[in-house]
Amino acid sequence: MKRVSKRNVAPEYGFGANVTGPGQRLMNPDGTANVKRIGEPGFQVINIYHSLITMSWSKFNLLVFCSYLGINFLFAFLYHIVPGSELNGMIYHNDLEKFMDEFFFSAQTLSTVGYGRLNPSGMEMSTIAAIESMIGLLGFALATGLLYGRFSRPNAKLLFSENALIAPFKEGKAFMFRFANARRNPLIELEANIIFSYNETVNGKLMRQFQTLKLDLSTITYLVMSWTIVHPINEESPLFNLTKEDLESLDAEFFINIKAIDDTYAQQVHTRTSYKYNDVVWDAKFISAIGQDEKGMNTFDIRMINNYSAVT
Amino acid sequence: MKRVSKRNVAPEYGFGANVTGPGQRLMNPDGTANVKRIGEPGFQVINIYHSLITMSWSKFNLLVFCSYLGINFLFAFLYHIVPGSELNGMIYHNDLEKFMDEFFFSAQTLSTVGYGRLNPSGMEMSTIAAIESMIGLLGFALATGLLYGRFSRPNAKLLFSENALIAPFKEGKAFMFRFANARRNPLIELEANIIFSYNETVNGKLMRQFQTLKLDLSTITYLVMSWTIVHPINEESPLFNLTKEDLESLDAEFFINIKAIDDTYAQQVHTRTSYKYNDVVWDAKFISAIGQDEKGMNTFDIRMINNYSAVT
Amino acid sequence: MKRVSKRNVAPEYGFGANVTGPGQRLMNPDGTANVKRIGEPGFQVINIYHSLITMSWSKFNLLVFCSYLGINFLFAFLYHIVPGSELNGMIYHNDLEKFMDEFFFSAQTLSTVGYGRLNPSGMEMSTIAAIESMIGLLGFALATGLLYGRFSRPNAKLLFSENALIAPFKEGKAFMFRFANARRNPLIELEANIIFSYNETVNGKLMRQFQTLKLDLSTITYLVMSWTIVHPINEESPLFNLTKEDLESLDAEFFINIKAIDDTYAQQVHTRTSYKYNDVVWDAKFISAIGQDEKGMNTFDIRMINNYSAVT
Amino acid sequence: MKRVSKRNVAPEYGFGANVTGPGQRLMNPDGTANVKRIGEPGFQVINIYHSLITMSWSKFNLLVFCSYLGINFLFAFLYHIVPGSELNGMIYHNDLEKFMDEFFFSAQTLSTVGYGRLNPSGMEMSTIAAIESMIGLLGFALATGLLYGRFSRPNAKLLFSENALIAPFKEGKAFMFRFANARRNPLIELEANIIFSYNETVNGKLMRQFQTLKLDLSTITYLVMSWTIVHPINEESPLFNLTKEDLESLDAEFFINIKAIDDTYAQQVHTRTSYKYNDVVWDAKFISAIGQDEKGMNTFDIRMINNYSAVT
Repeated sequence: MKRVSKRNVAPEYGFGANVTGPGQRLMNPDGTANVKRIGEPGFQVINIYHSLITMSWSKFNLLVFCSYLGINFLFAFLYHIVPGSELNGMIYHNDLEKFMDEFFFSAQTLSTVGYGRLNPSGMEMSTIAAIESMIGLLGFALATGLLYGRFSRPNAKLLFSENALIAPFKEGKAFMFRFANARRNPLIELEANIIFSYNETVNGKLMRQFQTLKLDLSTITYLVMSWTIVHPINEESPLFNLTKEDLESLDAEFFINIKAIDDTYAQQVHTRTSYKYNDVVWDAKFISAIGQDEKGMNTFDIRMINNYSAVT
Repeated sequence: MKRVSKRNVAPEYGFGANVTGPGQRLMNPDGTANVKRIGEPGFQVINIYHSLITMSWSKFNLLVFCSYLGINFLFAFLYHIVPGSELNGMIYHNDLEKFMDEFFFSAQTLSTVGYGRLNPSGMEMSTIAAIESMIGLLGFALATGLLYGRFSRPNAKLLFSENALIAPFKEGKAFMFRFANARRNPLIELEANIIFSYNETVNGKLMRQFQTLKLDLSTITYLVMSWTIVHPINEESPLFNLTKEDLESLDAEFFINIKAIDDTYAQQVHTRTSYKYNDVVWDAKFISAIGQDEKGMNTFDIRMINNYSAVT
Repeated sequence: MKRVSKRNVAPEYGFGANVTGPGQRLMNPDGTANVKRIGEPGFQVINIYHSLITMSWSKFNLLVFCSYLGINFLFAFLYHIVPGSELNGMIYHNDLEKFMDEFFFSAQTLSTVGYGRLNPSGMEMSTIAAIESMIGLLGFALATGLLYGRFSRPNAKLLFSENALIAPFKEGKAFMFRFANARRNPLIELEANIIFSYNETVNGKLMRQFQTLKLDLSTITYLVMSWTIVHPINEESPLFNLTKEDLESLDAEFFINIKAIDDTYAQQVHTRTSYKYNDVVWDAKFISAIGQDEKGMNTFDIRMINNYSAVT
Repeated sequence: MKRVSKRNVAPEYGFGANVTGPGQRLMNPDGTANVKRIGEPGFQVINIYHSLITMSWSKFNLLVFCSYLGINFLFAFLYHIVPGSELNGMIYHNDLEKFMDEFFFSAQTLSTVGYGRLNPSGMEMSTIAAIESMIGLLGFALATGLLYGRFSRPNAKLLFSENALIAPFKEGKAFMFRFANARRNPLIELEANIIFSYNETVNGKLMRQFQTLKLDLSTITYLVMSWTIVHPINEESPLFNLTKEDLESLDAEFFINIKAIDDTYAQQVHTRTSYKYNDVVWDAKFISAIGQDEKGMNTFDIRMINNYSAVT
């Protein structure tokens, strides 16, 4: 294994110096850590909220619908089995029809629509209905909060190029990748940094090392189109003289951190991703995604973010 | 085309070095980028939310009203065509009157008011009504979030002078503009910066260049009246010796970035605008908008923000 | 008028250099600017929201109640005058009783409780009721947002001593004031600054000047009890050699800016106040508000924040 | 009592220089100040909100349920005692049954379900019901805000090791503790600092002193597993040459401040804790909580956060 030169003080990234199995990522492309946490306390309200806020919309909608259905079934069942009295206004010929009426009464109570043709009589029925209507209102209070929480969470969505390139730059080469804003929220005051992580034998023990890569330009004011981030591979770079095979034998991984301000909510957002050695394409360059329409206005085609061509 | 002196390191603003057609703005006066994005993925929940949050109040109110009407029509139609059973309590002599009753039943269900004279019977009707009442509650949960989101979004509204001026300043001249707070939210800890953008031929290729303009004063603590931002045009300024015609031939544009803290929400807000060369008035100065009432208290007339007078 | 020494670069506070009538404050004790804005555009949704968020609780509650009453009256009136049909289920002997029933029907519709004894019949009645129930839901959506906005707004409430003191400090004197946290939200990472503002004749014109006063200690980590902010009046201070009468003739005002992080919401909050020359007590010192209970635990009595004793 | 060397300028932490009874903590392990505030104004809306936001979920849920019950009882009582008229639709044989019907009518009004079998008649009944339904809606508006406020409050939960250790480090010793993230919200851009607080006789008076302890590493980018914070006890450390007995006689306490960004909400969070001298274990070292599963992926066992072993 080639020895990597130490030009920048190795930052402690937070993963520690432990070496994983070869080819294992420390960070997933979506920026989450590839670490298995064990021994977590089982039930935690805040973790459930965190899941509800970050799950996909299709899952979330399904969950809301199923909860509505489930709670209605539960209460319908309670109305069904309560002894002594029954709902006023039911019209039924068999037990299924009775249950259906109880189910719809439950839905009318949970949603507080309360038409009143069906209405509770007797203390048991009335008590259950009073509790159900309270649960209904609290449930929809919760849904209100969740909907707002899902929308207002600052969440820049950056579209990174799938590959990082080793591309020509000035007289030499550079490590490059690019990204664009996948959303319409303007992003301003952007900052980028790259951390290069690799294995190294220190005092006879294989350890994980981390070095910051110096960027040609590390901030921009306003992300209008795409931003290509460039680390020039010159003599000061720890990548200097490393080959494609070296990166593999070093089990190299490049951590990307992007900070920006989401101008719609004036909140700072952080995005992370990583490129593993096999995401790096050697001797290629990005194809410009910028054009001009008939009026001379700049255009930017977001679908071209990963387009590159080989360089000979 | 005159050569512009390079005094300050050109900041990469984020628009890239591509040159647009002559007279085309890179930034619109409202601070949005004048770039056409193509190839965006069609439907994105977060972009819809972004539109709902940033659209005007009149559009938003119209949309809410039309959605309410539209959903009611849709469900009225469903109640109308469901075979087998009909709503309890309807009084009608013709199909239109029947539809009207179904429409109002739908409204009573969607808003969960549920008077009950009209009420569903039969499994199909009851199921549709149960779904409608759930949609009603979720819809108003969404409206709650949208209303709050629209209000609580940090959104300093700065009233910029329509024109930037080339005005007398000390012994020489200066590039000036001014702005005031259009809202009652106090703005504190303000920072301003100006970026001068122009065309230049570099290695035989026409490119867009960017330079920061040095300000006489770049921060104030509290925006009480208006703030006049001044870039002195001295030997260190890239505008030194440029004429009105030079600015046009350079296709000059001045980007303005204002940072401030909205004291009501303690959030940092960013405002951008730009002055194109034809927004710059030469040899004029602003008229003070500050007066004093009969008690000696300072007054500030916001309508005078753009008032200037010619200087000979 | 005594000439004030210029030790620190005068910060542009944002009030400009205009001189007000003698004794007029530039800033009110509650931190708002004492400036009359004229020519503001009349109706602005965001300013109304700002008022609703910052008004006192008693006013807010009264407003909510009156709006509920007012809207009910308005719709009751509409139900009353609509020709052709009347509400189902009314029991009345005279016009007042009819109006009362219409009023209560309106309340039942606005709050979506919809008992149903009273219910609309006919197209006009039903349409008005459908609109009222929509307004009801939107109104309570708005109330939800307002309630949350009022609570969650970061709003450190600092209890400042009513007076600033000229007190003994080390071998000399110092300008001092103190404050405590009036709330239970922990405040951390506090920063203070004082700006001294006074009149001065510059080139024959009376102008308002601003200087920063150097503090003995300008940051603390955690506001547990009270914090006494101290500006030592030594040779470097612009207050050096000034007397009580000098401060009056200079029309002196001291602006206080406190920054802190409200630990409950992790938001930075800014508080401002000012001491006019007649709020300054000469030759006095603060009495400690710290004690110890029987177990040796520190106690802090917030009522003593302004207690001082004369020094001879 | 041994004299502590002064290497770092003592920060003013905010507790002042007052000495508490021996063994009394200044800060509780949960980061709150161990100070009794007296003389606070009694009722403050914002403090009530603060309590409602920070209380435990079990208390909060109980409170919501009891409020619902309590308000219902109150209104049931009002309906019961109002003279002249009674609710329409009641079926009862005795006063208790009448009260039960009034109670359930109240619940149906408060939750706005309003079935309508029970409905108010007469002006008094109708007025009370109109007020109750308004209170119901405002109450649930409040609950919505509280639920959202509880969830969205930035609240990093760090799991600190119960003990700080005096452990071997390089050629010497170090003061160490560690912590992990107890939640799934990613924490990034962490900063730590330790303040050492002890008693010292200054000019014959016992005073509380504060010194910052220098850390081997004071920031990390991403908290993936646990972070061990290390203060090397070398000649520059105020702990140099102090023994276990010295720490006790100095009444030593170590304040820990951790800053981090909660990546889910992009908000900076601050966590505090303290170790009193008797929380410090001498001559021990932490046992690694990091392992590897069968695929070579790193694992982290959060239950091991406090595990240490003696060092001889």
